[in-house]
Amino acid sequence: MNIDGVAYRSIWRDGDAVRIIDQTLLPHTLRVAKLATAEDAADAIRNMRVRGAPLIGVTAAFGLALAMMENASDTGLRDAADRLAGTRPTAINLRWALGRMQRVLRPLKPTQRVDAAWAEALSIADEDVAMNRSIGEHGVDLIRKIAGEKSGPVNLLTHCNAGWLATVDIGTALAPIYLAHDRGIPVHVWVDETRPRNQGLLTAWELAQHGVPHTVIADNAGGHLMQRGQVDIAIVGADRVTARGDVCNKIGTYLKALAAKDCGVPFCVAFPGSTIDWTIEDGLAEIPIEERSADELATITGRGGDGNPARLRLVPEQSPVANPAFDVTPAALVSWLITERGVAPASRPGLLSLYPEQAR
Amino acid sequence: MNIDGVAYRSIWRDGDAVRIIDQTLLPHTLRVAKLATAEDAADAIRNMRVRGAPLIGVTAAFGLALAMMENASDTGLRDAADRLAGTRPTAINLRWALGRMQRVLRPLKPTQRVDAAWAEALSIADEDVAMNRSIGEHGVDLIRKIAGEKSGPVNLLTHCNAGWLATVDIGTALAPIYLAHDRGIPVHVWVDETRPRNQGLLTAWELAQHGVPHTVIADNAGGHLMQRGQVDIAIVGADRVTARGDVCNKIGTYLKALAAKDCGVPFCVAFPGSTIDWTIEDGLAEIPIEERSADELATITGRGGDGNPARLRLVPEQSPVANPAFDVTPAALVSWLITERGVAPASRPGLLSLYPEQAR
Repeated sequence: MNIDGVAYRSIWRDGDAVRIIDQTLLPHTLRVAKLATAEDAADAIRNMRVRGAPLIGVTAAFGLALAMMENASDTGLRDAADRLAGTRPTAINLRWALGRMQRVLRPLKPTQRVDAAWAEALSIADEDVAMNRSIGEHGVDLIRKIAGEKSGPVNLLTHCNAGWLATVDIGTALAPIYLAHDRGIPVHVWVDETRPRNQGLLTAWELAQHGVPHTVIADNAGGHLMQRGQVDIAIVGADRVTARGDVCNKIGTYLKALAAKDCGVPFCVAFPGSTIDWTIEDGLAEIPIEERSADELATITGRGGDGNPARLRLVPEQSPVANPAFDVTPAALVSWLITERGVAPASRPGLLSLYPEQAR
Repeated sequence: MNIDGVAYRSIWRDGDAVRIIDQTLLPHTLRVAKLATAEDAADAIRNMRVRGAPLIGVTAAFGLALAMMENASDTGLRDAADRLAGTRPTAINLRWALGRMQRVLRPLKPTQRVDAAWAEALSIADEDVAMNRSIGEHGVDLIRKIAGEKSGPVNLLTHCNAGWLATVDIGTALAPIYLAHDRGIPVHVWVDETRPRNQGLLTAWELAQHGVPHTVIADNAGGHLMQRGQVDIAIVGADRVTARGDVCNKIGTYLKALAAKDCGVPFCVAFPGSTIDWTIEDGLAEIPIEERSADELATITGRGGDGNPARLRLVPEQSPVANPAFDVTPAALVSWLITERGVAPASRPGLLSLYPEQAR
């Protein structure tokens, strides 16, 4: 997508290194960072310089390519994969991408692994873009249908950032919105701030760069807007979806899904097939929820009066802080799942209708 | 309640002026501010140096006393009451307190009004403290019952600040918690940050000063904790309650009530009788919701590295912001109403059982 009119991806190869947009500095500062080693890649994932389940997976794949340049032995491959897998516990795409890379690399001789790793990582990146385009195509139909039934713009609500910054390009939850906007369907997006890391500001930045009308709101406000008929449809991304359609996504998603159910607003989740964990059913019981640092809530970064990034303390030291990063929305609260294969109800039969090869 | 071992109220008379704790500087800086004129009082309410429905009402009452010192004529009384009433549109206590003051002052000669105004404002303040003590006594029974049914501390969740800083002393939602703690019932409070103004940090500060175990969480996290059985009971305050028990409170309350319902967690609302608006039934249709400045969400204040308060911009200028300050929780989502008269279901019969004099 475009930044100031120039086309970017969120991650790309640059010679023997990888370049990313450092997302911890957005929306105030755009800086491209270099990942020169596998440890750089692990660090970028861990510290959320890259974030979003699909992009985490692609970054890990590129990280393995960097690792092969350092040590392409069996031990080198295994150690690097383990190190990269340990950076974030919740997103399934991370493990999916590392599994796919290892299945390609393990049978090869160490001397062949560097080129093969770059090629496979690039394939994963390109496939992500193609998949997101398909997600957009399927999702835009839902938006067009609503546009046909009302006057004025379609009001969408999204939580966190499932835009092009969370993927390689285009995005998951935002893909249908970008396509709708580009095709002349009037849209307006309510953007949840998404405490504690404020990834909603990345969404606002993306939408502003692309010219999509939007309004930033506190996470607390979405239910109120739904009660007042000011939200026509909610679309969010996912970090892991179970075989029966339970959705693990950014903390707070569950609350918006409850409000959508209560107010009769369609609640949709958009993600590529790699986000589905076919090995589990019950998201609440079976998905580990990452507990992140208290500092993410206790301190905050923004733009100071001098235009430079600055950090403030919000929570006094004497008060403990808890910071679970994800929650689980039961399938019963989800209206539609949107994947690269189409739109389906959030259920095992629904998912199997899109991925029949997973039927056992 | 105590600050560093010294007993304070949130507002008090000091000669011909009024003193308040400036709540915009908490939790990082404790500063007592002087209100010398009615305009000072209006300004303190408007800019939330005082906040919380009960304290807003008491501040307006003191504001009328200050106004009588400036101009005790009929016109002076009416103008000051109008000006004070216009500061915040949602809380009912503001209009209740001004109505009560005017009913006392209007029949008097202007020369009698200054002394009468001070006396009545002090009565309102003292009655607030007594009512909160009663709210605490009734609410503590709910906590004691839970404590008897489980081992370990009773885990409570609260939203915004309905503690002693939101009242004259003791608080509404926090009153039962303070009483439980003081009587040896083990409690632990999950404190919602409460964006955009982060009044949860006032709650955390209060609880820390009083030694009550607590943990600050993002507004997004409460549903997740309820899903995992980590919340035994939720208690919040209210800015206005309708005759059938709909609850208007800080934005985001509705989302927590939905999660509590979904997870089988009792959701309780604590408030004095003056918070009930007997003239309306349907909270969604009939309560005006204050839309506050975009800056409250777009910028943030905290403690800088030098220990002084500092302000950062969070939302870039090109993104619009919406900031509704309250939402309405339908009575069906509320388990219990806790008032100075007792505990009742959230319904017209429930409220009338506590306030039979309101039956028509």
